[in-house]
Amino acid sequence: MDRHPPGAAGRRGRRRRDGVSDGTDAPGTHRPFDDVLDGLRREGLIEPPAALVADEATAQPDGLGRVTLSFSPAERVVRVPPGVSVFDAASWNGIAVDSTCGGHGTCRKCKVRLTAAGAPVSRHDVRTFTSEQLEDGWRLACLVRATHDLAVEVPPLVTRPKASTVGVGRQVILRPAVQKRYVELTEPTLSDQRTDLARLRDAVDDLTLEPDLHALRRLPTVLRQSDFKATAVVVDETLVDVEPGDTTARRHAIAYDLGTTTVVATLLDLETGTPVAVASMLNKQQPFGGDVITRISATMMDPEALPRLADLARQTLAELADEVCAEGGVDPAEVYEVALAGNATMTALLLGIDPEPLGVAPFVQSTADWPVLRAGDLGLALHPGARAVVFPALGAYVGGDIVAGMLASGLDRDKRVRLFIDVGTNCEIALSDGETIVTTAAPAGPAFEGGAIRCGMRAADGAVETVRLDASAEDPASAVVLGVIGDVEPRGLCGSGLVDAVAELVKVGLLDASGRFVPDDAASSIAPALADRMASVRDNERVFVLHRPEPGAAAEDSVYLSQRDVRELQFAKAAISTGWTLLIEELGLDPGEIQQVLLAGSFGSYLSPGSAVRIGLVPRLPVLRIVSAGNVAGEGAKMVLLSARERAGADALLEEVRYVELSDRPDFNDRFVDQLAFPV
Amino acid sequence: MDRHPPGAAGRRGRRRRDGVSDGTDAPGTHRPFDDVLDGLRREGLIEPPAALVADEATAQPDGLGRVTLSFSPAERVVRVPPGVSVFDAASWNGIAVDSTCGGHGTCRKCKVRLTAAGAPVSRHDVRTFTSEQLEDGWRLACLVRATHDLAVEVPPLVTRPKASTVGVGRQVILRPAVQKRYVELTEPTLSDQRTDLARLRDAVDDLTLEPDLHALRRLPTVLRQSDFKATAVVVDETLVDVEPGDTTARRHAIAYDLGTTTVVATLLDLETGTPVAVASMLNKQQPFGGDVITRISATMMDPEALPRLADLARQTLAELADEVCAEGGVDPAEVYEVALAGNATMTALLLGIDPEPLGVAPFVQSTADWPVLRAGDLGLALHPGARAVVFPALGAYVGGDIVAGMLASGLDRDKRVRLFIDVGTNCEIALSDGETIVTTAAPAGPAFEGGAIRCGMRAADGAVETVRLDASAEDPASAVVLGVIGDVEPRGLCGSGLVDAVAELVKVGLLDASGRFVPDDAASSIAPALADRMASVRDNERVFVLHRPEPGAAAEDSVYLSQRDVRELQFAKAAISTGWTLLIEELGLDPGEIQQVLLAGSFGSYLSPGSAVRIGLVPRLPVLRIVSAGNVAGEGAKMVLLSARERAGADALLEEVRYVELSDRPDFNDRFVDQLAFPV
Repeated sequence: MDRHPPGAAGRRGRRRRDGVSDGTDAPGTHRPFDDVLDGLRREGLIEPPAALVADEATAQPDGLGRVTLSFSPAERVVRVPPGVSVFDAASWNGIAVDSTCGGHGTCRKCKVRLTAAGAPVSRHDVRTFTSEQLEDGWRLACLVRATHDLAVEVPPLVTRPKASTVGVGRQVILRPAVQKRYVELTEPTLSDQRTDLARLRDAVDDLTLEPDLHALRRLPTVLRQSDFKATAVVVDETLVDVEPGDTTARRHAIAYDLGTTTVVATLLDLETGTPVAVASMLNKQQPFGGDVITRISATMMDPEALPRLADLARQTLAELADEVCAEGGVDPAEVYEVALAGNATMTALLLGIDPEPLGVAPFVQSTADWPVLRAGDLGLALHPGARAVVFPALGAYVGGDIVAGMLASGLDRDKRVRLFIDVGTNCEIALSDGETIVTTAAPAGPAFEGGAIRCGMRAADGAVETVRLDASAEDPASAVVLGVIGDVEPRGLCGSGLVDAVAELVKVGLLDASGRFVPDDAASSIAPALADRMASVRDNERVFVLHRPEPGAAAEDSVYLSQRDVRELQFAKAAISTGWTLLIEELGLDPGEIQQVLLAGSFGSYLSPGSAVRIGLVPRLPVLRIVSAGNVAGEGAKMVLLSARERAGADALLEEVRYVELSDRPDFNDRFVDQLAFPV
Repeated sequence: MDRHPPGAAGRRGRRRRDGVSDGTDAPGTHRPFDDVLDGLRREGLIEPPAALVADEATAQPDGLGRVTLSFSPAERVVRVPPGVSVFDAASWNGIAVDSTCGGHGTCRKCKVRLTAAGAPVSRHDVRTFTSEQLEDGWRLACLVRATHDLAVEVPPLVTRPKASTVGVGRQVILRPAVQKRYVELTEPTLSDQRTDLARLRDAVDDLTLEPDLHALRRLPTVLRQSDFKATAVVVDETLVDVEPGDTTARRHAIAYDLGTTTVVATLLDLETGTPVAVASMLNKQQPFGGDVITRISATMMDPEALPRLADLARQTLAELADEVCAEGGVDPAEVYEVALAGNATMTALLLGIDPEPLGVAPFVQSTADWPVLRAGDLGLALHPGARAVVFPALGAYVGGDIVAGMLASGLDRDKRVRLFIDVGTNCEIALSDGETIVTTAAPAGPAFEGGAIRCGMRAADGAVETVRLDASAEDPASAVVLGVIGDVEPRGLCGSGLVDAVAELVKVGLLDASGRFVPDDAASSIAPALADRMASVRDNERVFVLHRPEPGAAAEDSVYLSQRDVRELQFAKAAISTGWTLLIEELGLDPGEIQQVLLAGSFGSYLSPGSAVRIGLVPRLPVLRIVSAGNVAGEGAKMVLLSARERAGADALLEEVRYVELSDRPDFNDRFVDQLAFPV
């Protein structure tokens, strides 16, 4: 099992798809835009209307690769995108750093010592530390950006935060649904024959106690074993247990991000609001197919597949629960609640609900919101009364993971105009003008996952994740700079590398606005340092060689980008940009009014904002407005566990957000075609 | 398994106790009045203060034995106490008779034909039937009293009653918590992507539908299998299922009377409000002891006993469910709710809750009211979403069975002054003055169950259940008339026979007011026809021989009543009369103000009111004010299934009824001693 930052979790676990035929050829299933895509494939690509002028100011490459943070005394090494605050990096990885303001630079409690390298001193640092301490490496963790590798010493906690920072800078007041109350009761007499429950209720006057059967079974025994000194365990209004003595310091919950590919579990200490342990693993449903459509198909072809898939999802969750409890040193019986954010199909499969209506037009869910379930319904052997909160969904393709993401990014509370994009095989897009939120789903296809790409691979060791081209480099060896996961020999191209490669080829001019490689003679004059990398493979398909395993190796044996790969990426990005274009129109906005673009999901977090702008995946905006939001689904799941109020917020999103179905719009084809070209 | 009227169920199943030592000697357990009783036993009986003058007008014997009703075409033969209406007799036995007024003589729908014997013609009969029909035996079933054996032909139902009569003449408006709604939904389209649940909710606008997980699993599949024509199954506000097509005519529930000795199950058709099948069997916990104290002791001595007892109770309920479903031709999956009335100990054992605090001072329950459980929590394999309503309890010894009985007898709604007595090993007493209800428990001991009585036996074949003595009979053979269960040779004396025997001996003067047999010479002059039945057995204990198996047989080999038996009965009745005496004082009433005495429970129903008055078990009132209420616990359980409103009424009783604890009253001993004598 992997253990790494939530943001990276999806990457390491991502599985390479061997093709798309298993998905699109499945009997009876139907992706929302299949007809459109099929039609365009038959017709061939259409030239874009007019080449746009490049806007260099909006496209600045960010740093290559990731930075490594070594935390002590936790002995944890994590890799995060450059620019993330040390506080967030620690928080995402379950390393508790003191804080009461939630990482806003005001409480001055998040003191850490950077032992292996220096860092800039902020205004707040000067006010907080002596010059000796500053010299010694002390800084406020929320103000230190991880721009290069750092060793971080974290002092033990001295305060218990009343608030916790999760999601995209969301500060959540700690008010978990899981509450404990220690009471010392008077013992019954013949003149005071109140029932055990009445006695307990009278002592806990600030909470409603509706007992479940397990709690009633324990009540008389525990009260008498403990001389009537016991702790009531309450989830929402349900009394789920009575524990002997004072156990108020021990209450936990697990937040799950149930991805199609990767599942991440975070064990939370609800008393402090801090993550205790994080673990992730591949969704055990993988053998049934890499994406939601293939898994839905499986249930349609074999009646045994649904119970089997449900069981595999439960096993995945259960193993992760064991893992985080073992790592955190927490008794699973002291985990009283879980929250789960997943897309509509993953949620249905987990709960044993037939997903077929999600996979065929008109793409209908069984329900948008879920009753409060028991953790046992999800196959989890935690506290027997443990509850499971399952995120509601806005549509068959805008699922609970997106609602969790909206919650974590505060889309409903921020007054700015913000665009939220979760990039993946299915891409979910939401747009808020500060008042109204509209959302839709766009079928990007498997290109971003490395599928349907000749040298595509999942984001694992050997995958090229960043690409920089210098057309005028004097040394051809330095004309191509690749960032490779794991610092090993490049083996293939993952999604962010694909986007980078195309964006850079567009920038240097080797790809024209329509997505065609320029002729060889043009290449030599445009980019002399790169021209020798243009080649042809089978069927005379033109390619650009990114990496030759050895000098002079054939293009076929190299890591390269082909003309068809570019086309696949164009389809994918056009689906997405058609989505946000129509949402922008829906709210009567101009793209330039967008104040922030949040790239969510494990893939979105790793995408280069500059490259995303250059290929037109996101609106043409200054790159500083384009922000990696990290694993917002998992963050949203944490939020509802830390705050019952946020849970109500998630439910409220169902009422507040308007889902826009694109696949029945008559103008969709035209709009899609408009978006195929690159905005060079 | 037995199958017989609810009123008789407890009798057939009653088990003979072999002694009391297993109960009172159990380590650690403590019956509320043990100290008092032990003290009095040591001291010997005290003479009553003054013999009361017999009031012949208040003590009139009722008919001997039972009457037999043969119903056709159901081919069911039932035995009921004389005076019960044919309508009630049919209803109690699961034979549906048409009615919309609920047996009040106003709807004139409960037409039956008495084929084997005539019956008086009522005013309503004359208005309802032609003279030819009257001649032919047609009568309104609610107005015909079963004073002698009858054959009854029941026509098929032509109306569906909106109300049903249950309990003691309680008419319940049919509004079960279990509701069904058939809907024909429009199919989803791309422009109408409402979720399946939203579509269903929009179509069922008069009910709240909160789905459980099972219903959500079924929803998408069933809607699409049935072309979106389906039936929503709702219990309270929970959507528990969606069934293909129109199943509204099929909804059922099971009412359980979970007795310490006998368990009775009644399968109800919630669409018509009528019982479909009734079955009863011995509680499978019997091997652990005959009464609640011995079962509590078992759990204290062996940690494995509680789970075992819980399992046995569940098995009992499950077998009865199978039985009534098979008899009624109902699929167990179409039973959506059960209700359970049991005493506090039986309820705790069923639910796996440690009963020890109920068995030792200060006699405390874990809870008075229960959350809505699932039938599965009770070990029942009915509909997977079936709910279980467990009656709340007023105290450790005034349990859910009594709350059900109060509900069924309308104690909270009737403005009359009424005394409710459930006679048994533990006797529960409630008194209402039309405004306030007070209740208490009195430990009568096992005498009424045939325990601690030399020739005692449970009410099974061969048990003497009625006794009439004629002191001046010319033929000694007719001086003693015994009613025997099963029309076989008498083998022993059950509770009602014991009460009758003592009452008759007091009446003829062979027992004096203090409970002593008069000397032989006095017997000869007082009751010449009976004097030769006075004899002595071991230890020279004096006895009265009720039945000799053959002429001249020794008293030891006969069915007799001993001096010690009389003492046991005195203890039992004194405990009870002390209870109601104190309750009467509590409300500042005079015994003569009591307008009705309800004798509840299977034993109470069979008790002769005249004899009960004569021995002082009930206040000295005209016998017409003393009414057998039948199995009111089972009737209460039916009521809450037929009407959600009545369920609220049961909960309200918890607030309205005041429990009076007798065992800590300083004057209890004196009051108890005052009550030992017979009111001759």
